[in-house]
Amino acid sequence: MRFSRGRNFLFRVPEGEELLSFINRFVKENNVLIGTVSAIGSLRNPKIGYFDEKAGKYRVISLSGTYELVSLSGNISVKDGEPFAHIHVALGDSSGKLHGGHLIEGEVFVAEVFIGELLGEPLERKPQGNGLTLWDETRI
Amino acid sequence: MRFSRGRNFLFRVPEGEELLSFINRFVKENNVLIGTVSAIGSLRNPKIGYFDEKAGKYRVISLSGTYELVSLSGNISVKDGEPFAHIHVALGDSSGKLHGGHLIEGEVFVAEVFIGELLGEPLERKPQGNGLTLWDETRI
Amino acid sequence: MRFSRGRNFLFRVPEGEELLSFINRFVKENNVLIGTVSAIGSLRNPKIGYFDEKAGKYRVISLSGTYELVSLSGNISVKDGEPFAHIHVALGDSSGKLHGGHLIEGEVFVAEVFIGELLGEPLERKPQGNGLTLWDETRI
Repeated sequence: MRFSRGRNFLFRVPEGEELLSFINRFVKENNVLIGTVSAIGSLRNPKIGYFDEKAGKYRVISLSGTYELVSLSGNISVKDGEPFAHIHVALGDSSGKLHGGHLIEGEVFVAEVFIGELLGEPLERKPQGNGLTLWDETRI
Repeated sequence: MRFSRGRNFLFRVPEGEELLSFINRFVKENNVLIGTVSAIGSLRNPKIGYFDEKAGKYRVISLSGTYELVSLSGNISVKDGEPFAHIHVALGDSSGKLHGGHLIEGEVFVAEVFIGELLGEPLERKPQGNGLTLWDETRI
Repeated sequence: MRFSRGRNFLFRVPEGEELLSFINRFVKENNVLIGTVSAIGSLRNPKIGYFDEKAGKYRVISLSGTYELVSLSGNISVKDGEPFAHIHVALGDSSGKLHGGHLIEGEVFVAEVFIGELLGEPLERKPQGNGLTLWDETRI
């Protein structure tokens, strides 16, 4: 739960890349095992998920067109032995209304991404039996 | 206004906890007096506030059901002698529409929280006479 | 693309200031050339932009009244030889609905801003021929 600071990356994802898979490739190639991630930009035809607690799975919401990437927040930890990005996004349409949820995919028009690496004990996602893979809970 | 970096915490809040009071307990128990906080996850029955400037108080908006915690942004400083979290959230419903404002409360389904401690001169909230408790302004 | 950590600023913008120009003045006066920025608060009469890919320019969305500043995310880099803030915001109205996009301007009612400076090779925006000024792409 407590970490020291590692490397800091601020970069632009190439236009046309799929954002989530690019971030996952980036952290794998740079061996970032724990960290935080944030970004702004603009995405084409994003798909977001709403996790339906009762159904135990994500409902997929497919948006079409280009959306402002108003916020992207998330973290990096280890899942199935590899670094894994868990990311939520807020997306603005042409009238300024916001849509959002769990990022499933989105084609990059523009993406300016910050990744702050954290160093310390492994932080690992494990299947929870409710459809999610999560870290152990921290109690106080 | 200028701070050095302290400890870094990345952790999962136990399911069923009330998120805002958990964060306030966490910073108190860990003696985090200044810092930033961010998170993603999913909240049940969140209550958010809209500060009505003319009325000088928060209008409470009660949402029911489970919402994606699309963004959580805020800071930690001192109020009434104790560390205090000021937090705003964006929440996604099952159709992907976003709602949000000042976090009043929300039951955790999932919450993955990052707290970045800052070290330096005390940063203190003081009543402003307009219904808010704020830091002194920084002029340039 | 890879940076070390510089100074950390957490401060309150004076009421009545225009937020974007204040942040740009702040980073210029403090010589912050690269960094990340986040904030929460409340803005009056904000203007946000939606970048229309086909038209190659921003469509301006003017909101009236006071909005919760639910999230503000962005970065600092160099444009035309000076530090420049690129910022996106999510804004909550009195019913809790969210609006958002590229921050064009907004009068501060309350703004609590965090700026994390990054140190390293210059990160510079260059005109792209599509109406935007962007960093070079980072390929992996």
